[in-house]
Amino acid sequence: MQLYCRCPMAKTAKSSPFAPDVLPRVEPLPGVRFATAEAGIRYQNRTDLMVAVMDQGTVAAGVLTQSKTCSAPVLWCRKSLKHGKARVLVVNSGNANAFTGMKGRAAVEATAKAAAAAAACDEKEIYIASTGVIGEPLDPGKFTHLLEQLASTAIPDAFDAAARAIMTTDTYPKLATRKARIGDVEVTISGFCKGAGMIAPDMATMLCFIFTDAAVSAGALQDLLDEHVKTTFNSMTVDGDTSTSDTCLIFATGAAESRGQKPVSKAKSKRLKEFSAALQDLMRDLAVQVAKDGEGISKFVTFIVEGAESASAARKIALSCANSPILKTAIAGEDPNWGRVVMAVGKSGEAADRDRLAIWFGDHCVARNGERADEYEETAVAAYMRNPEITIRIDAGVGGSAATVWTCDLTHDYVSINADYRS
Amino acid sequence: MQLYCRCPMAKTAKSSPFAPDVLPRVEPLPGVRFATAEAGIRYQNRTDLMVAVMDQGTVAAGVLTQSKTCSAPVLWCRKSLKHGKARVLVVNSGNANAFTGMKGRAAVEATAKAAAAAAACDEKEIYIASTGVIGEPLDPGKFTHLLEQLASTAIPDAFDAAARAIMTTDTYPKLATRKARIGDVEVTISGFCKGAGMIAPDMATMLCFIFTDAAVSAGALQDLLDEHVKTTFNSMTVDGDTSTSDTCLIFATGAAESRGQKPVSKAKSKRLKEFSAALQDLMRDLAVQVAKDGEGISKFVTFIVEGAESASAARKIALSCANSPILKTAIAGEDPNWGRVVMAVGKSGEAADRDRLAIWFGDHCVARNGERADEYEETAVAAYMRNPEITIRIDAGVGGSAATVWTCDLTHDYVSINADYRS
Repeated sequence: MQLYCRCPMAKTAKSSPFAPDVLPRVEPLPGVRFATAEAGIRYQNRTDLMVAVMDQGTVAAGVLTQSKTCSAPVLWCRKSLKHGKARVLVVNSGNANAFTGMKGRAAVEATAKAAAAAAACDEKEIYIASTGVIGEPLDPGKFTHLLEQLASTAIPDAFDAAARAIMTTDTYPKLATRKARIGDVEVTISGFCKGAGMIAPDMATMLCFIFTDAAVSAGALQDLLDEHVKTTFNSMTVDGDTSTSDTCLIFATGAAESRGQKPVSKAKSKRLKEFSAALQDLMRDLAVQVAKDGEGISKFVTFIVEGAESASAARKIALSCANSPILKTAIAGEDPNWGRVVMAVGKSGEAADRDRLAIWFGDHCVARNGERADEYEETAVAAYMRNPEITIRIDAGVGGSAATVWTCDLTHDYVSINADYRS
Repeated sequence: MQLYCRCPMAKTAKSSPFAPDVLPRVEPLPGVRFATAEAGIRYQNRTDLMVAVMDQGTVAAGVLTQSKTCSAPVLWCRKSLKHGKARVLVVNSGNANAFTGMKGRAAVEATAKAAAAAAACDEKEIYIASTGVIGEPLDPGKFTHLLEQLASTAIPDAFDAAARAIMTTDTYPKLATRKARIGDVEVTISGFCKGAGMIAPDMATMLCFIFTDAAVSAGALQDLLDEHVKTTFNSMTVDGDTSTSDTCLIFATGAAESRGQKPVSKAKSKRLKEFSAALQDLMRDLAVQVAKDGEGISKFVTFIVEGAESASAARKIALSCANSPILKTAIAGEDPNWGRVVMAVGKSGEAADRDRLAIWFGDHCVARNGERADEYEETAVAAYMRNPEITIRIDAGVGGSAATVWTCDLTHDYVSINADYRS
């Protein structure tokens, strides 16, 4: 077993063109410690096990996949979230422990038991997430014996090592950190997540873990998470395929209380306004990082839909565009094929006024009042399409609501990555 | 202007591997005549205009795209179908006349006017469909002057020329014919359609035109079409992208009445049972032909979902699989990645019992009771994946309903075709 704390960011030819040169420096938090290990679950020569140990008094909230075939760890987290207390988070990569029947549940129970023993806490305070291949039984014997040492050697300043250990096909770790004031006390929110990458051969599964030292109730955290997930993680797509394992958890240690922060129990409290905005900003940052590492990405694409009947209608129209294979391949080919935007708006099922619809590629208006714009010049728009980051704005022409969705293009590399045989 | 009736089937390197060696011989029908022409709307050196002229007394029914950005011809057909009578069908390829505003409506009106003059009928008896690029104004002046000569020279035995004239990216014309008895009288149903192909650069738009000499009311035809479209065209997908122009029309000349067929006015009439089955079979045949010519296809894939709560739930689960980019690329890579089937079932939103779910690739059971099947042998299933036609069967484990959906894989060629610049 080898322990990691920090590693340099090394880009390869297979890295996303949007991989950062320097990873953001993530603030350690009082009350949260990380340790990682090479458990050899599937990958060789890399970490694949991450443990976060949290001080007594930590509360938790979370959102989990809506999939009807969700994984055993998702079911476990759903149960733990009912209690809302947290002491240990155990995450492995390489195996999703999904569609593994009774064996999968037994693996989760064995993990929870070992983690509870390692931290001397209740099994209800354990959270578990797994990501990787679906349908392969996960052998907990590969890592349960490591948990005690990991828990005892965990350190606060190891966010990037933790983010690396949960990667699957990601080409870079995804980290973000924010500060916010609650009353007069500054608190920190730091988190990391994983998405879809380029090398390994199985399904993209979104995992996100956020930590804060704020003293905020589990109920308030849950309300904030429910609200912000719509405009962040649920407004991002790589290929429209929903994972069996999607998990976004937030943990609040409450350590800021010792610095004078008065605990907050309601999400609507005015004192949480800045914290809520910072949390949303951090979640958006992480969501964009996932889209920017979408499998096979050559272009990062933002769809902004305005003039829709409601925010959810706007989001549905934007997602219909962001999930359209024929539009995403046109973007990969740098073709300003706005007819395909019209198609994707039309198939969304949401209200749009065909005769008032307008579309912009960057600052170029390509269509207005339901037909090609008079000023449309294909050469100029084609030149815009050569940018690595493309923004397509749509006015649905029926209302006053808007939404933004982030995605990547659909490239030959996406096909290569996902057509590669798993073994 | 050059007129065509029949041409040989010539395959090229770019043809779908499922392109037929010999086109089916389609029975001409009393009361229906076809003519085609090279109008030079977009393509060079091929026909792009098709006119079908039908005898007085012909009735029509149809289903049209649900798109909120549907084309001008779709709006026109919706109006004509209210009257239910038909004399002329005009179809052009190369330009969809979609998202063309007032100009688009004017083009449709000019076409209807010229067609009505050519056939000495009412404009309400004209049906129009256009397929090709979206957002380009369609100049009706390119072909309205041809309609009179086309109408006067049209011949019954020209189904394949008609099917060729409406192709866009299709690599072969799609034709089918069936016979059925209504009472003691044999009637013919013949049709053709277009789908998604390989060379031209815009969106797949499904057009289908079916003709019969049966004496059946427009209302009965509409009921039959509504029923059968679910299990045929709406059970087929190439990339999940819904066209602005999808149009499926059926025309019944009633010529069989002169051979003694008593007219039928109700779809539920027992006398229509054989006709209804033959129509469904013909529509299924055409739908499968479209999937087999899906852009970039290397494998034809059939998803059979059983044990679902309802037929529509079964179809939704099957479509969730058939539209999953990550599953379709795995199939292109000959990877029996059944974990992605589990994912696609889970994301469909329809009821499935995770712990009773079973999956077969061909005759190989890969999963049963919510986990990998004991008898699963990857080598055998991997060998099965090398077949050009793949059948994946899923038992959702919650009910007694079933559905079948046809699709193709997602290949490098799909990306190449759709990333190619339009010009």
